[in-house]
Formats: sequence, structure tokens, C-alpha cells
Amino acid sequence: MKLKLLYSDLKSDLDVIEKELAIAVNSSSHLLNEASLHLLLAGGKRIRPVFVLLSAKFGNYSIESIKNVAVPIELIHMASLVHDDVIDDAETRRGRETVKAQWNNRVAMYTGDFLFARAIEYITALENTYAHEVLSHTMVELCIGEIIQIEDKRLLDQTVRDYLRRIKRKTAILISASCELGAIASQADEKTIRHLKRFGYYVGMSFQIIDDILDITSTDEQLGKPAGSDLLQGNITLPVLYVKNEQSIYPLLMEALDGEISEENKQKLLSEIRKSDGITRAKQVSNMYLEKALNEIKQLPASSAKKSLQNIALFMSKRKF
Amino acid sequence: MKLKLLYSDLKSDLDVIEKELAIAVNSSSHLLNEASLHLLLAGGKRIRPVFVLLSAKFGNYSIESIKNVAVPIELIHMASLVHDDVIDDAETRRGRETVKAQWNNRVAMYTGDFLFARAIEYITALENTYAHEVLSHTMVELCIGEIIQIEDKRLLDQTVRDYLRRIKRKTAILISASCELGAIASQADEKTIRHLKRFGYYVGMSFQIIDDILDITSTDEQLGKPAGSDLLQGNITLPVLYVKNEQSIYPLLMEALDGEISEENKQKLLSEIRKSDGITRAKQVSNMYLEKALNEIKQLPASSAKKSLQNIALFMSKRKF
Repeated sequence: MKLKLLYSDLKSDLDVIEKELAIAVNSSSHLLNEASLHLLLAGGKRIRPVFVLLSAKFGNYSIESIKNVAVPIELIHMASLVHDDVIDDAETRRGRETVKAQWNNRVAMYTGDFLFARAIEYITALENTYAHEVLSHTMVELCIGEIIQIEDKRLLDQTVRDYLRRIKRKTAILISASCELGAIASQADEKTIRHLKRFGYYVGMSFQIIDDILDITSTDEQLGKPAGSDLLQGNITLPVLYVKNEQSIYPLLMEALDGEISEENKQKLLSEIRKSDGITRAKQVSNMYLEKALNEIKQLPASSAKKSLQNIALFMSKRKF
Repeated sequence: MKLKLLYSDLKSDLDVIEKELAIAVNSSSHLLNEASLHLLLAGGKRIRPVFVLLSAKFGNYSIESIKNVAVPIELIHMASLVHDDVIDDAETRRGRETVKAQWNNRVAMYTGDFLFARAIEYITALENTYAHEVLSHTMVELCIGEIIQIEDKRLLDQTVRDYLRRIKRKTAILISASCELGAIASQADEKTIRHLKRFGYYVGMSFQIIDDILDITSTDEQLGKPAGSDLLQGNITLPVLYVKNEQSIYPLLMEALDGEISEENKQKLLSEIRKSDGITRAKQVSNMYLEKALNEIKQLPASSAKKSLQNIALFMSKRKF
């Protein structure tokens, strides 16, 4: 995998994080261990710990101290994934398949709660109350973001600003915190911390916009899930926002947001959005954030970590699927 | 109300906590504010903040510093109440009415997540990493307790020890943390902190056992919900554990745990348990914990706070409904 090559020199430290994650999710409950391990083994790219480690390279790098922030950041990411699986009655009926069949809502919820709590417990090993503040504030913002996403669902009367505020909380803030906390844990200077924090924020914004574009432009096979899932779930993303009022799009969009659209009309809607300039305009916004990200990183002294962060930012913002 | 009289001299400080709670749950999401305020106005006895405040009287009492632990403790309690409302499909069909009709699962879950996160964020104002540790460890144990409660549901093959371990996490640990954190926030000495921590633990154990007894011995009117709810939800409590194998009880118990029991048979089962010595034996265990609680408090210097803690312990362990 290409992304992994970009941070192959972090391998041994990422292994440390992986081992610590396994220890952190261990508890006296068999069911909890099963659920947590399932999540852990499902893997994921561990991109947030990578941001933590690379950012820490701009200070006094010591894996023993940095793991105290890398582990909780990934635990919070895992917790939010499992909470995303908790569903409503109504949604079950709409046939979402994402919820893990072997767990019910309550197990998924309490597993997520446990991972959140462990994250917070884990970071207390770092005797730095400012780091605790950053992590807990990040969690608060993530939760507000989830509720706002519910509020904004199926709401056509929303602005680009609403969208940007939503993805900030949904994605950008955790990547931003990864960079900031990596720098804090390695006692980088304040200016460096600020650049890295902003870098993470901009990369996160750029990445999420691309993710939302790909949900429309990719094939089902490339995505590993049906294209247009966001729309079917009622999430209105940037490319759609730009063209929602166009004659060829509006009626189909209403059908999709009602969750009652036929497969044929869904394909027609996706094809109309692809043809529109919504995609191009969304890409421009993503590129603007990428530029801002690269600009922040430019201010930092030359190093292999700097080169890696630049490459990862480019990779995340330029990926095709 | 009798309990309130026991701590009437805390009134103005409890008002401070109440105002701080309202500030803490405020966010930029309208839906979240609505859900949180609903929870806040539903009130509750605020017994955990009372334990925090009274315990803090054994050190350098300052409400400005103590609110930093009293508020998060109550937020965590509120979060666990709202998460308790998240239900499974299967359970809806069994007709639980507890879930707030106006919220769905995801809103309840993220509201709880938000309150958890705010709790953690709030305590970071106290520059004492040990207090952060105590709170986050408490949250971890609470979550493990919730999952163990799911694991142990409808499981007749469990011991008194399993039950005690469960109620420790479900109830005792948060009351224990209330006392401990109150003492820590007022910089009480280590011995005092230890006594108060243990006192809270023992009171919590005694209280929960009484609560579980009352679920069987009270009328529907006294409880404000149908007697025997624990059994119908598959939670096996101490009085039941003692007599589960008796001939007059076992077959009815199996029916109840399967969730298929008729109202007539449920009444018969409750009446059989009431007649058995399960109630008496459970009361003895509750009394033993109450004795232990009073014994811890006895070691502390005489004061009106000491008297109040003794009275509250007696009140909580001796209540009739």
C-alpha cells in the first residue's frame, strides 16, 4: 500500500502503539475484550498516530512519552467508529448493513464509552494538564459535531459554512489534535505547536472534502460500499450543496433525501452531479485547504518528518479513491 | 422532602453547582441544548454533589475549587442515565417505556457522549492530574460495569460475588469517587481522603442492595414503575440470588427471565420471593455495608459535615421506598 511506504521509517514505533492499544483495550469483561479486539484487528490505517509521531519529531522525540497521546487519539477514533454503528429503529428498517451483526446497540455504545474513558485515563499518564485539556476539548467538539450532523440531516436549507463547520468537527479537529498533541508531548516550542495544529486542521478539511467528492464520483467497487451513501443517509456534502438547486438535480435530490429513491434514479442523480460543476468547485476548496496546510508546514525547519508530512498531506488530498 | 432537610445548609453551594451545570451543558447545537436541559431540569436529588461538598468540608473548603469536581461527577451521572435510555430493537419490542419518546437512540447516545466529554473537560480546570486520574478511572470502571451487566443478564449461574462486583461498578464507585474527589479538591490529608473514599464505596453498596430489595418488596405506586422491573429486564439481584433454586421460585423465575411471564405469575413470583428469606439475608448484607460506612466516618474529627454524612448514610440505607 502506497500510504504505508510514506511512513515506513515509523514502523517500529507504530508497533509500540499497536501493542499499547491492545493492552489499553483489555479489561475484565470477556464481551468487552471481544468487541474491542474485533475493532482493533479491523485495523485501519492508524493515520492519526502517524500524525502524532511525525509531529513529535519537531520536539524531543521519545516514544515513551509520545505514546501517551498517540494511544488515546486512536482510541477516540475507534470509539467514534463503533458509536457510528449505533442505529435507530427507523434506520434499521431502511436497511443499513453497517452495524456489526454480532453486537447490539447497547454493547456497541458501551464499548465506545469504554474506549473514550480509557483514552482519557491513558493520557493522564502524561503529567501535563494542558494536554488533558486539548484532548477533552477535542472530544467535546466531536460530540457536538455528531449532534449537528443529525440536526443538519436531510436539511437542504444549509450553507457551505454549515458544511465546513460540520466537517471541521467530524474530521479536521481530531487530526489537528493529533498534530498538536504530538508536538506538546515532545515539548516542541509554542510556534511549532501552532503550525502543526493548523496543518492538521487544514489537512483534515482537505481530506474530508475529497472523501465526500469520492462518495459521488467513485464506483461501488472502489468505495467498497454503494456510491452516493452520504445522500441516502441524508448527509448533504459540498459538491451537492453547490448544485442542489439545479433543475436536473433538485427533484431527484428530494427523493434521495426522503430515502425513497429507486436505484435507477439514484444513478441518474449521481450522474447529474458528476456532470455539474459541483465536483470542480468542491475540489477547488479542497485544494485551497491543502495549500494552507502546506504553507503551515513550510514554516518548519527542514527534516525528514517535514517531508513526510508534506507527502501525506498531498497523498490524502490527491487520492483518487 | 426529608433527604433535602439533611443538607439544607449546603443550599447556596448546591445552587452554584446547579448554575454551573447549566453553563456546562450549553453548546452551539440547539438539539443538544434541548436534550441536555431536559435532563438537567428533570433534576434528581443531586446526591453525588452533596457527597462531594460534604467530603470537601474535611479540608480547605472553597466552592470555587470544589465545583471543579462536583460538576463533572453530576455530568457523568447524567450521561449514564441518558445512555441507559439507548435501547436495542429486541427490547423495544418488549415494550420498555423508559426511552424518551422525543429522542432517538443516536441523539441520546451523543448527548451522553457530550456530557462525558464535558465532564472531563470541566475537571481539567483543576490543576491536579491525580484528580483527573480518579475521574477517568471511575468512568472506565462504570463502562466495564455496564458491559458486565449485559453479560450477566438472564444468567442464573452467577454468584453473590458476581452481583457485588456488578453493583460496585454500577453504583458504589461513583459515590466513592464523589467523596474522594471532594476531599482531594479541598486538599484534605491522605488518611482523610482514604476514609471518605471507602465511606462512599460502602454507602453505595448498602444503598444499591436496598434499591434492589425495594424493586421486589414495594408496590408499583411507591416505585413509580412496575415492581419486579429488574427481573423482567433480566437483572438478577441479591435477594433473588439467595433463593433462586427454591422449588416455588425456580420455574417462575425462568419464565420471568425469558421475558414471557404473565402478570399473574409475576405477582406470584414476587410474593414467593417476599416470603422467602432472600429479603432478610440481602438486608443483612446491606446493613453490614452500612456498618462499615459508619465505621469509616467514625475515624474523622467531629463536625457538622460528619454528622450529615452519617445521617445521609442512615437515610439511604434505611429508606422504605
